[in-house]
Amino acid sequence: MKNLSALSIAAALLSAPIMAQEPIIHDGEFEYLRAQYGDVWDSQDVEIEEKLSEIRAANNGKPPNILYILIDDVSFGQMGNRTLNYVTGIDTPSINNLASEGLSLMRMYTEPSCTPTRTAMLTGRHPIRAGVKEVKVALVGEGLSSEEVTIAEILKEKGYNTAHVGKWHQGDIEQAYPHNQGFDWAAFPLHQQVQLSLMTREAMQSNTMLGFHASGQTNQFALDQRFKPYGLVTGVEAEAGGEAREVGIAPGEEWTQAKYEEMNERYQRQILEQLERLAAEDAPFFLQYWPLYPLNFVYPDQAISRNGGFHADKLQLLDTWIGDLLAKVDALGLRDNTIVMLMADNGLMYHYEGTSGLNQLIYRGGKTQHLEGGVRTDAFIRWPGVIEAGSAAGDIVHVSDLFTTFARIAGASDLIPRDRVIDGVDQTALLLNGEGNSRRDYVYVYEGTVLRSVVKQEFKMHLPAPGQPGAAAPVFNIYRDPREENPLVGYSLWSGASFQDMVKRHQMTIAKHPHFPLGKGVPYEGISNLRPESELTREVFASWQKK
Amino acid sequence: MKNLSALSIAAALLSAPIMAQEPIIHDGEFEYLRAQYGDVWDSQDVEIEEKLSEIRAANNGKPPNILYILIDDVSFGQMGNRTLNYVTGIDTPSINNLASEGLSLMRMYTEPSCTPTRTAMLTGRHPIRAGVKEVKVALVGEGLSSEEVTIAEILKEKGYNTAHVGKWHQGDIEQAYPHNQGFDWAAFPLHQQVQLSLMTREAMQSNTMLGFHASGQTNQFALDQRFKPYGLVTGVEAEAGGEAREVGIAPGEEWTQAKYEEMNERYQRQILEQLERLAAEDAPFFLQYWPLYPLNFVYPDQAISRNGGFHADKLQLLDTWIGDLLAKVDALGLRDNTIVMLMADNGLMYHYEGTSGLNQLIYRGGKTQHLEGGVRTDAFIRWPGVIEAGSAAGDIVHVSDLFTTFARIAGASDLIPRDRVIDGVDQTALLLNGEGNSRRDYVYVYEGTVLRSVVKQEFKMHLPAPGQPGAAAPVFNIYRDPREENPLVGYSLWSGASFQDMVKRHQMTIAKHPHFPLGKGVPYEGISNLRPESELTREVFASWQKK
Repeated sequence: MKNLSALSIAAALLSAPIMAQEPIIHDGEFEYLRAQYGDVWDSQDVEIEEKLSEIRAANNGKPPNILYILIDDVSFGQMGNRTLNYVTGIDTPSINNLASEGLSLMRMYTEPSCTPTRTAMLTGRHPIRAGVKEVKVALVGEGLSSEEVTIAEILKEKGYNTAHVGKWHQGDIEQAYPHNQGFDWAAFPLHQQVQLSLMTREAMQSNTMLGFHASGQTNQFALDQRFKPYGLVTGVEAEAGGEAREVGIAPGEEWTQAKYEEMNERYQRQILEQLERLAAEDAPFFLQYWPLYPLNFVYPDQAISRNGGFHADKLQLLDTWIGDLLAKVDALGLRDNTIVMLMADNGLMYHYEGTSGLNQLIYRGGKTQHLEGGVRTDAFIRWPGVIEAGSAAGDIVHVSDLFTTFARIAGASDLIPRDRVIDGVDQTALLLNGEGNSRRDYVYVYEGTVLRSVVKQEFKMHLPAPGQPGAAAPVFNIYRDPREENPLVGYSLWSGASFQDMVKRHQMTIAKHPHFPLGKGVPYEGISNLRPESELTREVFASWQKK
Repeated sequence: MKNLSALSIAAALLSAPIMAQEPIIHDGEFEYLRAQYGDVWDSQDVEIEEKLSEIRAANNGKPPNILYILIDDVSFGQMGNRTLNYVTGIDTPSINNLASEGLSLMRMYTEPSCTPTRTAMLTGRHPIRAGVKEVKVALVGEGLSSEEVTIAEILKEKGYNTAHVGKWHQGDIEQAYPHNQGFDWAAFPLHQQVQLSLMTREAMQSNTMLGFHASGQTNQFALDQRFKPYGLVTGVEAEAGGEAREVGIAPGEEWTQAKYEEMNERYQRQILEQLERLAAEDAPFFLQYWPLYPLNFVYPDQAISRNGGFHADKLQLLDTWIGDLLAKVDALGLRDNTIVMLMADNGLMYHYEGTSGLNQLIYRGGKTQHLEGGVRTDAFIRWPGVIEAGSAAGDIVHVSDLFTTFARIAGASDLIPRDRVIDGVDQTALLLNGEGNSRRDYVYVYEGTVLRSVVKQEFKMHLPAPGQPGAAAPVFNIYRDPREENPLVGYSLWSGASFQDMVKRHQMTIAKHPHFPLGKGVPYEGISNLRPESELTREVFASWQKK
């Protein structure tokens, strides 16, 4: 795998003229903070750089490995905490244990949906800046642009071995595939779980995908044979720069719940294999595990959790898998020089509350929503000897910060592009020095392309509807009112004014540094063994795409 | 204090013919469980009795001291857990630490309001069986009957020294006072915080008690001079069998927020004094601390919490006070042979969400409501060397169980009356043997005199409205849906049927063992220094009471 061409990475990096001397372009709000804290941060950075050098020196000059685990659609509180395990009837002892060995980030903000959060983590940018919003199931001919520079590309350039296993959800075009975005090796589904877990005969019969499967109705008036997605590519595997190959399904075969479960088990097997392979190499590694579980819409034969809901039960299963993975980290002697981070990408799929077993536990709302329930997730990071075990930080962090922070820790900050806005803030000080050292106290929360909320310290403003005056915008105190139900706007017009300043600064930054375009292309290119039914689907799409 | 007459206790005990041979009369639902588990429990009880004997033997033959701390109006999750501290912006390190040293009861059910929960704990009975519902502010001439046998009376009879400090809220008649219900000494307010904290000039001016204070309006059409409660007795102190004496206020003086704060500080001082006094005695002690904080409706000059709400901030203050009390337990060498239990009496006062800083955090609802938010509270119990440190139990427990369990631990089960229904289940096995050893998997939830919900295992049925059929009753799975919002009744008609059986069993037990009457009398008797304004209030009440 090491002998693969790095052409695609070079292409991406070429688009970003790198000069270490130029500062990273940050959002206006960050510059407001830098004006207040720049000197403190600069002197703190000198100490941090010394500390990072010491850590590398103690490890044969190598920066730490990074194992990044991103769980799908789980709201804050639903993993990693025994008390809340008791509330939900879902036991997560492995994740609880990981939490106890590292730092719990108590105010991690993500984007409200899968594609955007993953883009933010990969690029350090609010997805809107890369033209990205949620990638839907079915062909779109869109995805993460090769113009974007991912953390995998940066780390690879710095000498890391890189691999990705599991959900990807960055588009159906060749430039968007993980092995073309910085990963030496990748196993991933082309689309996501709506296709893989909901659009099955079993999900229809379990009452969660009413009417989807053809066996569920006979309708002689239907014309469009592609209204129900048909012949979509499922899981593929690929090496950097190479062609992807679909696995686990034969031409003409129907996708089933059993196949979905087999796919999940395969990814779990592959993450263990990849870890073992990477551990044997000299170079440090960056390994991503982005499981598809807990998403699942069919009851098991026998629930293993007290909760028994079809998401909940798979979350408990996934916890045992995480336990196996972390045991493997230990068994391979990797514990000390490996950063392990685990978090979720956004809140629960509240649409299935009740039967799924996940629920709006503390914060209101979920996936797709700007409410705290949509964008607040559990996040734990372990780095033995560097990050204090059992510590916690109430500081605000955004998922895009991981891009900047991982690059810093790898000694690769100079590879961060300087020709575009980087929203990710360097949070190395928070990791090394602990609570109170975050370099942000704000977050802009988008739903797709629309700015819906602005978070500042303990306050959160929901933006007023178009045409409404600022005084119509409800402002919440997140400590006093985590569910965002009592806006107390009468008391907070002062904060409305302050929030409007923040929105202005954000807009002015965009005006100065316009958004990049989304990647476009022909779907399903670069797949070596397209099934005839996928080929047919692509032809129907292509005949429309050309028009 | 030891030389006080025990007449009142004897009178109460005389009303309950005690014969160790007769079994305790339990509710029908418990007998259903006993029919399934009686043999197991009986053999387990033999081992438990041996273990309790060993514990006493190791402590000069003395049973353990009991320090019982009951916090007012705090919903589950709002104290004792660091993760949730971060959510609320309220730090409770002392209570978190207590939790880590003992057993966390993860499904403690209380009654939904102050008076009923306290009655249930004191008598081991659903308050309805003693005729008790919430005691309102203002004179009522009602309260806990002398016919009821309290845990204090039982422990006193067994040789314990007993004292009570803080909120009592069991009525304004002499027989209901704590020093007439088993406590050697007591300091307590006659009524509760609506009088002491809400009905002040400061609370009106802080926008939480609109229009209450006379300074807030001038209304020449008002006739009734007692519509706004006037001249109520505030805090009193007394010894068993003696007269109470009001303290901290002079005739004609106005009650203020400053006086309320002074009262809280006095109770904190007194609990430390009482602990020191009781530690010096030979006999074991039963000491209750029932603080008035966090209830409070005026902002402090400077908040100490990140939350800053007027309840929230006092909860954080109270945590430091609890820390001082527990440090005193250690300093007096009491740690090893003292059971320390801390819990709340019911959920938050949701009416003040937003400004109070407490909120419907996980469960929906609060004080006065049968929803989980009303009747689920944090509960931690520490008994070094006996209860496993850092343990947790997901078993269902009801606050009335403390009566039966404390009596058992003190070796006083034979003093539990046999002429009435005792709802409290002996949970000694749960404390000694840990999770999975509760002897109940059900709770009946009343609001006042009305049965509103029945809890069984993970299921909860809200009773249908009068006249509605059983199929109209929503049934919830509390793990999958802690907020009781998705009844999934279509899937749960089977459980409706089972719940109706439970209601029948409960009703049949009541028919066989009818409720006792509430204590009645002339308010404010037995107070030696009634202020003229209180005397006047009583006269107005008495002139009506006679009719």
